[in-house]
Amino acid sequence: MLAEIITIGDEILIGQIVDTNSAWMAQVLNNIGIRVKQITSVSDDEQHIINALQEAETRADVILITGGLGPTKDDITKLTLAKYFNMGFRRDEETLQHVTSIFARMNRPMIELNRKQADVPDGCIVVQNANGTAPCMWFNEHGKVFVSMPGVPYEMMYIMEEEILPRLKAGFNLPSILHKTILTAGIGESFLAERIADIESALPQYIKLAFLPKLGQVRLRLSGTSRDEAQLHDDINHYARLLADRLNEFVVVEDDIALEKAVLDIMKAKGLTLSTAESCTGGYIAHLLTKHAGSSAVYSGGGVTYSNALKMSVLGVKAETLEQFGAVSEETVKEMALGALKHFQTDYAISVSGIAGPDGGTPDKPVGTVWIAVADAQGVTAKKHSFGNKRTQNIERSAVAALAMLSRRLKEGQ
Amino acid sequence: MLAEIITIGDEILIGQIVDTNSAWMAQVLNNIGIRVKQITSVSDDEQHIINALQEAETRADVILITGGLGPTKDDITKLTLAKYFNMGFRRDEETLQHVTSIFARMNRPMIELNRKQADVPDGCIVVQNANGTAPCMWFNEHGKVFVSMPGVPYEMMYIMEEEILPRLKAGFNLPSILHKTILTAGIGESFLAERIADIESALPQYIKLAFLPKLGQVRLRLSGTSRDEAQLHDDINHYARLLADRLNEFVVVEDDIALEKAVLDIMKAKGLTLSTAESCTGGYIAHLLTKHAGSSAVYSGGGVTYSNALKMSVLGVKAETLEQFGAVSEETVKEMALGALKHFQTDYAISVSGIAGPDGGTPDKPVGTVWIAVADAQGVTAKKHSFGNKRTQNIERSAVAALAMLSRRLKEGQ
Repeated sequence: MLAEIITIGDEILIGQIVDTNSAWMAQVLNNIGIRVKQITSVSDDEQHIINALQEAETRADVILITGGLGPTKDDITKLTLAKYFNMGFRRDEETLQHVTSIFARMNRPMIELNRKQADVPDGCIVVQNANGTAPCMWFNEHGKVFVSMPGVPYEMMYIMEEEILPRLKAGFNLPSILHKTILTAGIGESFLAERIADIESALPQYIKLAFLPKLGQVRLRLSGTSRDEAQLHDDINHYARLLADRLNEFVVVEDDIALEKAVLDIMKAKGLTLSTAESCTGGYIAHLLTKHAGSSAVYSGGGVTYSNALKMSVLGVKAETLEQFGAVSEETVKEMALGALKHFQTDYAISVSGIAGPDGGTPDKPVGTVWIAVADAQGVTAKKHSFGNKRTQNIERSAVAALAMLSRRLKEGQ
Repeated sequence: MLAEIITIGDEILIGQIVDTNSAWMAQVLNNIGIRVKQITSVSDDEQHIINALQEAETRADVILITGGLGPTKDDITKLTLAKYFNMGFRRDEETLQHVTSIFARMNRPMIELNRKQADVPDGCIVVQNANGTAPCMWFNEHGKVFVSMPGVPYEMMYIMEEEILPRLKAGFNLPSILHKTILTAGIGESFLAERIADIESALPQYIKLAFLPKLGQVRLRLSGTSRDEAQLHDDINHYARLLADRLNEFVVVEDDIALEKAVLDIMKAKGLTLSTAESCTGGYIAHLLTKHAGSSAVYSGGGVTYSNALKMSVLGVKAETLEQFGAVSEETVKEMALGALKHFQTDYAISVSGIAGPDGGTPDKPVGTVWIAVADAQGVTAKKHSFGNKRTQNIERSAVAALAMLSRRLKEGQ
């Protein structure tokens, strides 16, 4: 089964946005056994869109189209699809009600431009867009499936997961594809590969192992394809067990979830609470934790103590400590963690203080120097890291290192 | 002048990496007046690459190809280009010396596979790759320009900037392309479109207006192409002025930068400081601010007061207020902002308290109910928002609304 992705809109072609949608779509399609043959980005131009559709349908069974569905003049995907399939328009009542209810909920008046979002080519199947006003349109034409979706990532992702992938799975006779992921942190990709080389070599041909490294974490993903789902399930679990046992201390969780979610789950199960004291990560750890529903059961909150004044007033770091050792030091980061533990009254606290860059480095403490501490009732431990010179990466790496350190501390406490 | 970008390699098609190269290339090409007509990602498959080349040369004058130049078997770009242009191979002495010197510098032995990197199609012009072993190849064939570059981002970027863009500029008589972006917040796309419909209709043919919406913000982008750069510059600025004046209170900045960066710039220029008091946004606003280098000049820090206990202990919110009105209320969010202003000693403070969901909603305060306040020495104002039921979106929308509210307050204070 082959798919092609067509993204429509000038934003990508002038480089204003990076096309992250296509990579995400390719991943989820691969997960259900559909291979992406080509990804094409074209402009908001009728003839160009038609050419792309013509070319795609010569190669693929499913053509997934994103973008160009807004209410304004420059969005012409809907008109072009109607022309391509030689269809007229009808006003879709369900869509109109959906759009109306969105405007009512947001307490905004509707204009004709908004109502027009409910006009769809008369031969398409409308798939409602739960998160926006532009409906998704499914066409069974020319012996192929064409699906037109909004380009706004969260709208597209929701429609893909809830509507399109299930319909594709049901409509085509796809072999079973199973994945099992093990999340590791604190070990580099090459070391990890060496440590499990014999297990990797022993894998049967229908099970593949992928190393997916990402700033301080490596995900190991076993993927198998077979028509015998039960057998495949047993085999994948067998090899996952071997890998997890071998990598024991580096395994955060045997699941494809985010590192911080794994930590939240472990702490929630044990009834533990957490607070944060962040300097160079500037609220990023707090954000990672609180973006997960239910995080409030574990996470009480924290301080983003960017200035030294706030390190003192919010966390109780001593002025002498800051003077003598500086804000980026073992002493300060330990006082930050202990201060968070005490003032925010939680079972665990993590703290981070470092030089994210690009400025602020010194010969002693170059950009990328980051101290991280974890505190609980038993005491506080700190570790120094030397990351690179990219600000965003330093923030992300620091957050991952702090969460990995907390994860290991929680394991030791078992 | 039209260009097309072809990226070769399975990594993008299985979603393992996001194609950031193409967006960057599109930007720098646009800057010298070359418009990208299409971006195509294809697999490491000879016939598929040939099809992509054939299609691209029917539309574009310049075809830029990245990827598939490594020394291993799965990299077939060079072989395929030789076949496409019906060329043999020659060993390029300059490239061989370059590769040899790289291996000498890294103190690594060279094998025949490495020497083969110096073999190039005999009709191409070799452009040296200062940062890697795979040479860049320039073909003047079929009346078009084809350039094959490595896919490693920093290798490609260096070659583009130092070699390819100067040659394209010198070789073609290019028109000027100018863009001007206006960032608005707090007004929906359709309303915005209606409000400026007459200006949009009056635009000359060589200037286009695009609406780029993103959770509570809409970017308006004027793009013009002309051989008379001075005139185009004046014209774009004229229409940008008309748009900005018409949309006055909704304009955050007349530039293509992030909302929070615009706020930081405005505050920095005025020597103002900012703190945050976040409940449902959970550190996301702090993260947005601190991801920008130099933010510490404006942003002192803040509290992520997820629990009521922290709202009281960190921000000084009164227990009675929380009891009587609840955490998500005008009274609480105002006390949070005033508490931040006082305890964190900044000129401005923003606070957010809401129900991000998916749980925690009540009939009175459904999921998506968010109170936002801005405080300064003159006092505090608060506003209630009713967003949707998606947690991530509610967090992002709340952050945008808070920053937009602060931006308007800063404007009023001018």
